[in-house]
Amino acid sequence: MPHKPVKSPPPSPHTPASVTFPRKREKEELGKGAGTPGTPGGATTAGAAGDDETVITALELASAELTPAMQAYFDKCTEKLGFVPNVLKAYAFDMPKLEAFVAMYNDLMLAPSGLSKLEREMIAVAVSSHNRCYYCLVAHGAAVRGLADDPVLGELMAMNYRAARLDPRQRAMLDFAVKLTAQPWEIEESDRNVLREAGFTDRDIWDIAAVAGFFNMSNRIASATDMRPNPAYHGQKRQ
Amino acid sequence: MPHKPVKSPPPSPHTPASVTFPRKREKEELGKGAGTPGTPGGATTAGAAGDDETVITALELASAELTPAMQAYFDKCTEKLGFVPNVLKAYAFDMPKLEAFVAMYNDLMLAPSGLSKLEREMIAVAVSSHNRCYYCLVAHGAAVRGLADDPVLGELMAMNYRAARLDPRQRAMLDFAVKLTAQPWEIEESDRNVLREAGFTDRDIWDIAAVAGFFNMSNRIASATDMRPNPAYHGQKRQ
Amino acid sequence: MPHKPVKSPPPSPHTPASVTFPRKREKEELGKGAGTPGTPGGATTAGAAGDDETVITALELASAELTPAMQAYFDKCTEKLGFVPNVLKAYAFDMPKLEAFVAMYNDLMLAPSGLSKLEREMIAVAVSSHNRCYYCLVAHGAAVRGLADDPVLGELMAMNYRAARLDPRQRAMLDFAVKLTAQPWEIEESDRNVLREAGFTDRDIWDIAAVAGFFNMSNRIASATDMRPNPAYHGQKRQ
Amino acid sequence: MPHKPVKSPPPSPHTPASVTFPRKREKEELGKGAGTPGTPGGATTAGAAGDDETVITALELASAELTPAMQAYFDKCTEKLGFVPNVLKAYAFDMPKLEAFVAMYNDLMLAPSGLSKLEREMIAVAVSSHNRCYYCLVAHGAAVRGLADDPVLGELMAMNYRAARLDPRQRAMLDFAVKLTAQPWEIEESDRNVLREAGFTDRDIWDIAAVAGFFNMSNRIASATDMRPNPAYHGQKRQ
Amino acid sequence: MPHKPVKSPPPSPHTPASVTFPRKREKEELGKGAGTPGTPGGATTAGAAGDDETVITALELASAELTPAMQAYFDKCTEKLGFVPNVLKAYAFDMPKLEAFVAMYNDLMLAPSGLSKLEREMIAVAVSSHNRCYYCLVAHGAAVRGLADDPVLGELMAMNYRAARLDPRQRAMLDFAVKLTAQPWEIEESDRNVLREAGFTDRDIWDIAAVAGFFNMSNRIASATDMRPNPAYHGQKRQ
Amino acid sequence: MPHKPVKSPPPSPHTPASVTFPRKREKEELGKGAGTPGTPGGATTAGAAGDDETVITALELASAELTPAMQAYFDKCTEKLGFVPNVLKAYAFDMPKLEAFVAMYNDLMLAPSGLSKLEREMIAVAVSSHNRCYYCLVAHGAAVRGLADDPVLGELMAMNYRAARLDPRQRAMLDFAVKLTAQPWEIEESDRNVLREAGFTDRDIWDIAAVAGFFNMSNRIASATDMRPNPAYHGQKRQ
Repeated sequence: MPHKPVKSPPPSPHTPASVTFPRKREKEELGKGAGTPGTPGGATTAGAAGDDETVITALELASAELTPAMQAYFDKCTEKLGFVPNVLKAYAFDMPKLEAFVAMYNDLMLAPSGLSKLEREMIAVAVSSHNRCYYCLVAHGAAVRGLADDPVLGELMAMNYRAARLDPRQRAMLDFAVKLTAQPWEIEESDRNVLREAGFTDRDIWDIAAVAGFFNMSNRIASATDMRPNPAYHGQKRQ
Repeated sequence: MPHKPVKSPPPSPHTPASVTFPRKREKEELGKGAGTPGTPGGATTAGAAGDDETVITALELASAELTPAMQAYFDKCTEKLGFVPNVLKAYAFDMPKLEAFVAMYNDLMLAPSGLSKLEREMIAVAVSSHNRCYYCLVAHGAAVRGLADDPVLGELMAMNYRAARLDPRQRAMLDFAVKLTAQPWEIEESDRNVLREAGFTDRDIWDIAAVAGFFNMSNRIASATDMRPNPAYHGQKRQ
Repeated sequence: MPHKPVKSPPPSPHTPASVTFPRKREKEELGKGAGTPGTPGGATTAGAAGDDETVITALELASAELTPAMQAYFDKCTEKLGFVPNVLKAYAFDMPKLEAFVAMYNDLMLAPSGLSKLEREMIAVAVSSHNRCYYCLVAHGAAVRGLADDPVLGELMAMNYRAARLDPRQRAMLDFAVKLTAQPWEIEESDRNVLREAGFTDRDIWDIAAVAGFFNMSNRIASATDMRPNPAYHGQKRQ
Repeated sequence: MPHKPVKSPPPSPHTPASVTFPRKREKEELGKGAGTPGTPGGATTAGAAGDDETVITALELASAELTPAMQAYFDKCTEKLGFVPNVLKAYAFDMPKLEAFVAMYNDLMLAPSGLSKLEREMIAVAVSSHNRCYYCLVAHGAAVRGLADDPVLGELMAMNYRAARLDPRQRAMLDFAVKLTAQPWEIEESDRNVLREAGFTDRDIWDIAAVAGFFNMSNRIASATDMRPNPAYHGQKRQ
Repeated sequence: MPHKPVKSPPPSPHTPASVTFPRKREKEELGKGAGTPGTPGGATTAGAAGDDETVITALELASAELTPAMQAYFDKCTEKLGFVPNVLKAYAFDMPKLEAFVAMYNDLMLAPSGLSKLEREMIAVAVSSHNRCYYCLVAHGAAVRGLADDPVLGELMAMNYRAARLDPRQRAMLDFAVKLTAQPWEIEESDRNVLREAGFTDRDIWDIAAVAGFFNMSNRIASATDMRPNPAYHGQKRQ
Repeated sequence: MPHKPVKSPPPSPHTPASVTFPRKREKEELGKGAGTPGTPGGATTAGAAGDDETVITALELASAELTPAMQAYFDKCTEKLGFVPNVLKAYAFDMPKLEAFVAMYNDLMLAPSGLSKLEREMIAVAVSSHNRCYYCLVAHGAAVRGLADDPVLGELMAMNYRAARLDPRQRAMLDFAVKLTAQPWEIEESDRNVLREAGFTDRDIWDIAAVAGFFNMSNRIASATDMRPNPAYHGQKRQ
């Protein structure tokens, strides 16, 4: 799960299974130009104080104690990304839910597949664009920019994938994923055959469907809870 | 995952980790009144011969060997339901995917929650109705009929939940789930507050969102792969 | 078209041509699992006491005295179906309206046509599914199951006709009927030509349009009045 | 219901019950400014020569011999309107269908009701506007202009009823009719209560629903068959 | 801009730069058959008394003094049309806005182009029909009737351009304009190629897009301000 | 019009009225990760060689000679922004069209108004997000980031303005602009009154409508022509 908060402090060594999530709304969400918002709902924050005082969601859900596996995973996020992605903090009120989410996410996005990691992220962003999911567009738009080493491709996926100069295979992949998002009831054998003709195997078709399906789930959990992305994503790989 | 195929044979004792899924299209899907269909695509079937010769999906994906945990789970399905739900057979080409799906499904639908199991199934069916997902409407419609001991409530959820005589709490729950399905980008604090005023806690809101999100994923995987429900569901709890 | 209202005059003992419609809401509509509903509106019920104490619609409309022709028709319904379909009881507040409805219905659904009775019922259900009409899905779903002698085909029509294994002729017929339901303004000569190429005559095209049109009317009258189907439909032809 | 069909038998002088429908496409439909169209399909026209040489629909359906009742009705149309409305000619290939249509139409639009005839025509046009039905907008737009003695009101109904200066009762009536047209599955008791608060009785609600439902049927039959309005409507009551 | 109000008085010679716009709602908008409306908002009227006592928009915006160029333009409108189109009066609260609008409008609709003036007006009306803009449908429907010398073509454009008998070139032009209106994000090279194959140059494509775009702007300004068309349009070119 | 291309060379002094637009597709649009695109259509490029070898649109339209006023304007763009925004180059095939566009744009976005320049840009981006217009989202997203001095606000407007923490006035402004974009036919006095209650004057309402309308035009011209934004926008104000 390729995301990260600004300057989130490493968990102190003596509290191996607890996360500390800050509680102040971050500076840029207040929006100099955008007026002063009221706080929506109770605003879930997690953990103790810290530099990255992020409000994660609009729900008041106290963090649970991280299991050792999840602590290790959070530590790895901090080490590699510099922060723990907010979606993980949002799920951290309940370890079975967090673990199930992490297991499915990592299998889908990182396990071997006929789809490259970049292609899976492109599906994530095109689906999230259809669903206008702020969290996922910010976090996975950054992933596309990073994996493609291309500051523009993430924008194209987030704004209108049809405007991107894609090879026919990737275009077919995204057309299927977005139709499956918008009108799943209209997907038929002819749609699968377009993918097969573009070179995808049946296993690839499963993976396209599974990634598109997963983000149709995640987009809705993020929108339902007003999940906010870690601020660090915004500036990543812009040049 | 409470579902089941007709007369699926018990796995033989000496092959504890392999499943046998039949390959002929079942009788009722041929549709006496509905003409003779061509076979769409390759039509995934799984395993060896058997009485329940079901085509599970339109994808050709060979079953993997079940891990002991999954074998035990499939055995329990057979014991309790009389069959292994086709969605599990569909995922059985890859054990990490099957296990992640089972872990998330069981946590969402069976773990303790402020929502009853019936309420979670009602969300499943109302979401699947919006998405017109044949597999999920059949399998989870049967679950609503069974859990409610009411042959009509499942029909109401599958056809138009707005026509059901629901208490205001359940109505608010389904309104949120279906709006989240149809226009996730329009969910805001005011929508969450309607749920709070109906008596739901923030944790309940998470659960409503998570179940609705999960079926937005599952509906799409089922539609993308033309997943067919086990025939046994159709007649369950009709009187 | 198998299917009652408040303050309907008690059938006088010497007038065998009057119907008695019960007044209590039937058991399954109260929904064990679905909470206790308030009564919507005044809830039209019709007639005196009886076993099937159904609330027919949300409108308070007193039953008129049946004309001899309509009495004979209701008697025939009772003889053949075991009950008078609620849609007929709903129209029974006004004899000219009832007679016009019955005349049009019987001509469309029962008179000679290039479409089989089953095909006309398939159109009825596919259109009612698009319009999510609870009354018509229940009543005509049962008709499809019965005419096809197939417990599954009715479900497929009610849930998503695109998932059914249909021959190309029936598929073209339903595609036309559902497009005509969803976007009538986009029907053009090319759509009619698809039907002609599938083997339909111009007279058949009229009949497809007329049945689809009729259920676009009936769905709306049922939805506008909260019409409730006779409970007996639910269990018909489920095995 | 002011509105004619190829190969209709020439009226024999001694059979007063047959109609003569012309066969040339009328001048204004060729469209000076709109290029020369190909003929769509076979183009149903009816009857022998005559002044109004109209193609009625895109379907080739030979006119049947009018029953005496229908002949009398057509004669009355000619006497009062100067022509037989094309919708009647379109149905004239089959007397039971024509009679059922005429019976239902006349009951709905002309029988006593809490809605004025103008109000019923306003519903007809607002519904037909949502469905973008050329035939019904032309024929019933003229009816609104005539009944209201107002050249503008028909335009408002046909273009966007929300732009009309209506009293709250008529506005509520049209809002219900158009919602019932666009999203019948979302009509609930609260919608009926808005009508009751605007002064409508339950019987009036039935009539609003029945007229809106009827035009949802007629719009689709007209669109499915490419029905063309009689040219005379266009210039009626324009000043 | 081909439009005009009833009997708008010529600006008196001594006030060369001021317009007088009447303030009473015109007779036909009150709608004999349509009840008595409340006045929406403050109802912008412009200028002093006059015969054509039109309410132009729902916004209270005082007319500015016309620049000599705009006065000359208004005079020319009055001379040629008999009135100043209300859209011009609506913009007349601010001269730079009026002048920019007039410059763009006249260039688009009147300057040399591969599209005839009638074709540009056909696009205007088909786009306005999709957007259900009362002002533009009335004003530009009259323009189509006049330029085509055809009382029917304007109706077809306003009601459903798909029902018109158009040559393939004009049909392709309107299909592009309406798709660009409804789903601009789905316009791609294949859509432009359909136009090229129909004989349009790239410059023509620009003009189609620019006219369609302009009316997507104007429709929204008219709807946002409840702009009312000059009554004179209604009767123009009806026979 | 606040936009700019990378390192576009100043027009050489001896060719005061001609612009030079490069012709190679820029590096980032080729998309390292996104495959190799075919060239869509002929791809409008303008002028001679240069550093910023941008393809502006998919239309082949030769640049006209700039009028002195437009040359001065282009020079000012280059001076202030470092480049001439591609939308201006796209219009530069015809001077009256370019001048009309520039006059309207500058009046709307820069002239005195009750709306701040930032607010006008926020409307531009929220409208462009609804219409999924790549060009306008890139160019005006950068403008919001710059005017707000806030790298996040532009993202929020481009992705889902409902997720932004806005004061009620700005929220009402955007709700009106987006409803006017999506369903202009449903804007009524009650919508205008919400704006008045939020503190907007009638003149402000005009300006909101005019800016929203303008971008509904520009979005469509950009989408119809596949207009590509200057690459420099992407990196602007990201930290």
